[in-house]
Amino acid sequence: MIMKKKQREKTDPGERIDRIGFGELKLIQNPRWFCYGIDAVLLGDFAKNHRNARITDLGTGTGILPLILYHKAKPFHVTGVEVQEEVAEMARRTVELNALSEKITILKGNVKDAASQIGRQTQDALVTNPPYMAAGEGILNEAAERAAARHEILGSLEDFISCASEILKEGGSFYMIHRPHRMVDVMVLCRRYRLEPKQMQLIQPRKDQSPNLFLLHCVKYGRPELKILEPLWVYEEEGGYSQRIRQIYERT
Amino acid sequence: MIMKKKQREKTDPGERIDRIGFGELKLIQNPRWFCYGIDAVLLGDFAKNHRNARITDLGTGTGILPLILYHKAKPFHVTGVEVQEEVAEMARRTVELNALSEKITILKGNVKDAASQIGRQTQDALVTNPPYMAAGEGILNEAAERAAARHEILGSLEDFISCASEILKEGGSFYMIHRPHRMVDVMVLCRRYRLEPKQMQLIQPRKDQSPNLFLLHCVKYGRPELKILEPLWVYEEEGGYSQRIRQIYERT
Repeated sequence: MIMKKKQREKTDPGERIDRIGFGELKLIQNPRWFCYGIDAVLLGDFAKNHRNARITDLGTGTGILPLILYHKAKPFHVTGVEVQEEVAEMARRTVELNALSEKITILKGNVKDAASQIGRQTQDALVTNPPYMAAGEGILNEAAERAAARHEILGSLEDFISCASEILKEGGSFYMIHRPHRMVDVMVLCRRYRLEPKQMQLIQPRKDQSPNLFLLHCVKYGRPELKILEPLWVYEEEGGYSQRIRQIYERT
Repeated sequence: MIMKKKQREKTDPGERIDRIGFGELKLIQNPRWFCYGIDAVLLGDFAKNHRNARITDLGTGTGILPLILYHKAKPFHVTGVEVQEEVAEMARRTVELNALSEKITILKGNVKDAASQIGRQTQDALVTNPPYMAAGEGILNEAAERAAARHEILGSLEDFISCASEILKEGGSFYMIHRPHRMVDVMVLCRRYRLEPKQMQLIQPRKDQSPNLFLLHCVKYGRPELKILEPLWVYEEEGGYSQRIRQIYERT
């Protein structure tokens, strides 16, 4: 990621403040827990066409997606929901650090309760970068904060999708990034909860490699018809970010 | 396609005999109805790892897939099922023309009845290049044979998938090629009929364009975990078939 270390201000031990490469926005992160990846940047760009909208980010972690969406979408308001109290508190300090308390709210909450906290059918758009691994899959990280960010411990994929469907308005947009190995689960659940997949983009490390991520845009009560966009690759063969990634970082 | 016109032998008016580019194999086609496309070639190559297997092709049309599979997979036997009597009869003449009556059988039948004709849980692999459009979608072709090949008139997507599931053995492989706009329907139905999607490959006209076809490999009663292969593109930017397509045609 494009980050620069800056002077420490209002951080707890182990935390650091990074410039995220979009305007002057800064983010508090704790590397012992997790730092955001390119996934959040890709998702924020994919979901950016929601000017003046009410947007919710389910499982916001450090609050990186509300920041990117604030910068790219110019929304009316972004709500980030984070289940882990310490992580939510850190995200709240990031919002204050950027003087964005009127544009971004961080709620401490579980996806299972988020609909009652935020209100049913109130949001124009919903984004989520959920844990990629099912509860029983792979090796659990020892740090609870890391484990919950990577594994479906505190909320299953179905919890994320059913919650999204509940809080979205009719015709509202749902954006998710996930790993290809769960694509069938994602599609089956999205259709079950009436979030119809309309656009998909596969993310490849390089131009001729297998994708390791996919972006999905669903519309609540949408008509079935999926469009797959041209593939997006992160690195050029000769090294360095691809032109598309540089565009996303507004470096071209 | 790579085809050469040859002398007419045992053909009806309007028919022609083409070399299909695999060994000496020849195919009778009637251009008034339809001619096979690259879809069949891609699917035949994708499904080729079934030496000595019993394979069925649902909706075989001219019988192109049984021919390609005979050439590439060296199967024990291939059965092609075709609902339109005139088309099935033409495919039978193609089998005779190639002296392959012991390796390939063409049955006249509907996908709804195919399981009782072929036998439940008898096949190792099943391939299908079904009609791409739902019954109400797009403009119907005036010729009945063309319409049935392109639209779900005589069998729905669900009919094809449920039939495949019925006739496959446990652990058997299901291969399909379809258009991206129906991908969610395909995945939802495959899972419903216990054909778990395990491998997918997207086909792009060119390296940086949106895919217009996808290949899917499902395993009956397979464990959920999809792998997306590297993208396959048909043409190079400078024109001409890509290296991968030339490989499939065994021209490299």
